[in-house]
Amino acid sequence: MKVLIIGGAGMIGAKLAERLAKDGEIGGKAISSLILHDVVETAIPTGARMPVGVLTGDLPAPGEAARLVAGTPDIIFHLAAIVSGEAEQDFDKGYRINMDGTRTLLEAVRAAGHKPRLVFASSIAVFGAPFPEAIGDEFFNTPLTSYGTQKTICELLVSDYTRKGFLDGISLRLPTICVRPGKPNKAASGFFSNIMREPLAGQEAVLPVAESVMHWHASPRAAVEFMRHAATLDTAKVGPRRALTMPGLAVTVGEQIAALRAVAGDRVAARIRREPDPFIEQIVAGWPRKFAAQRALGLGFKPDRSFEEIIRFHIEDELGGRVA
Amino acid sequence: MKVLIIGGAGMIGAKLAERLAKDGEIGGKAISSLILHDVVETAIPTGARMPVGVLTGDLPAPGEAARLVAGTPDIIFHLAAIVSGEAEQDFDKGYRINMDGTRTLLEAVRAAGHKPRLVFASSIAVFGAPFPEAIGDEFFNTPLTSYGTQKTICELLVSDYTRKGFLDGISLRLPTICVRPGKPNKAASGFFSNIMREPLAGQEAVLPVAESVMHWHASPRAAVEFMRHAATLDTAKVGPRRALTMPGLAVTVGEQIAALRAVAGDRVAARIRREPDPFIEQIVAGWPRKFAAQRALGLGFKPDRSFEEIIRFHIEDELGGRVA
Repeated sequence: MKVLIIGGAGMIGAKLAERLAKDGEIGGKAISSLILHDVVETAIPTGARMPVGVLTGDLPAPGEAARLVAGTPDIIFHLAAIVSGEAEQDFDKGYRINMDGTRTLLEAVRAAGHKPRLVFASSIAVFGAPFPEAIGDEFFNTPLTSYGTQKTICELLVSDYTRKGFLDGISLRLPTICVRPGKPNKAASGFFSNIMREPLAGQEAVLPVAESVMHWHASPRAAVEFMRHAATLDTAKVGPRRALTMPGLAVTVGEQIAALRAVAGDRVAARIRREPDPFIEQIVAGWPRKFAAQRALGLGFKPDRSFEEIIRFHIEDELGGRVA
Repeated sequence: MKVLIIGGAGMIGAKLAERLAKDGEIGGKAISSLILHDVVETAIPTGARMPVGVLTGDLPAPGEAARLVAGTPDIIFHLAAIVSGEAEQDFDKGYRINMDGTRTLLEAVRAAGHKPRLVFASSIAVFGAPFPEAIGDEFFNTPLTSYGTQKTICELLVSDYTRKGFLDGISLRLPTICVRPGKPNKAASGFFSNIMREPLAGQEAVLPVAESVMHWHASPRAAVEFMRHAATLDTAKVGPRRALTMPGLAVTVGEQIAALRAVAGDRVAARIRREPDPFIEQIVAGWPRKFAAQRALGLGFKPDRSFEEIIRFHIEDELGGRVA
């Protein structure tokens, strides 16, 4: 299997690349080559069991997508996007990268003619408030951001190109990834990870919302598994509705903190400082809290088992097993 | 009010132009100019009470949309599209006209900066089977054609450009228009109109499906009223969900024929020849039958009152009041 990851330098893209490089196979079939593409240079995973190529470029630029699919990859993971906040601030850039980039890729795949599996990283931002208690698989798309609009449009394109037989696509609406590694960022959703990651690393973290706030999470490991599973899933079972809400954990901030206390102790949990921010509280009030992701569960996608497990994964994967 | 109709040579576009030209006003405000645009030359309505301009060109071509909005129209009706069958046969043309054409228009409006009302003609093709008994306002979009995909994408763009304050848009999902004037056509949906129009004109018509087939209809007059109402509606009442399913009549083919008999007599109704066509029956089985268009009704959009009225409108408007 020839595998291409677009957005290979991103957080999930890099973790997926590492996993595939280490495994040497996907769905029981050997990976003969792995190509990593991003707008910035992508690190080659160490100890890869196959040749790994790195391509750097701007996906929507003329010829770039054609260059990517010239090697007729059997599986394409498309994770390249600019994030929600940037897409909202820079309208043109958002549409150019998130919508035109995807369309250009789909067109290049169509022109190549080899009908690969394409796994598209979508988002729960395709949904907009008001929401039911738990958002079902047939809830309608009313995005309230340009990012969410762009992801919804890409889902529609993936389904239509699939229906026409140009490729075999599937769109995964990822939960918010938690615990997100790296530095604290100023995204409104950043605190969900900050209040776990920073205390575990010996740092103080600010909690800007009430502990009653509920949100929908998946670990980076779960996200990588979603991608791997989607790459070799029997899509005949998926039917024409090719966008799937991925299973996650609906937990409150209070439950997150209780899990942190259970895993790492009071000393770590005490590093969270409550500092309510009405601006962030208002933004978060418009976000989905919980989903009933029955279709994905029925197709074998698996959520994390508990938030404690999510924290333990983070300690193992990012902290070498040690809490500060 | 300066009014622009894009797709002004189409069936609804031309009827809307005639109506506005005759009225001289919309929503109680005088129309100071009316511009009609289409890819073919548009006829100027007779007896217009304002200057009428005709522009001919290809909407997605470079500079064309900018030319259209250069006069800063207060109201833009966007009805230009290629139809479902053609969009399915010619994938590139469908995306170019139906999706890129609309996006180009939205971009030109954004660049012009005057934030006009934009009324976009969408379609019930944004929905795909399987359906509930009656499709509600929150049913999700799973189009099963490229045309439906393109219309859904345009709805999303209209909502996002509206949310960003670039324009004040509203998308109307029109029912199937019946009785559609003109020649019989080979569209799979053609028979819904053919079996009314041809017998009324003294011609035989073929009915390829069972009389139990139910579908969702609006008269050309109702469609024109939807457009006029949307043009001056208080959009603060619409909120961020800018796509509205228009109210229609859910009637079976048997009810259509009964209405024809009631209005025009047995002699006319006897001109329908039953000739079941499994291919058309299969296509039609995947179409929506009935909607619960509560939002639009609440916003003052009005359906036809009965199918008999729809037939009488056709006799008045297209046959000079005389049945053959």
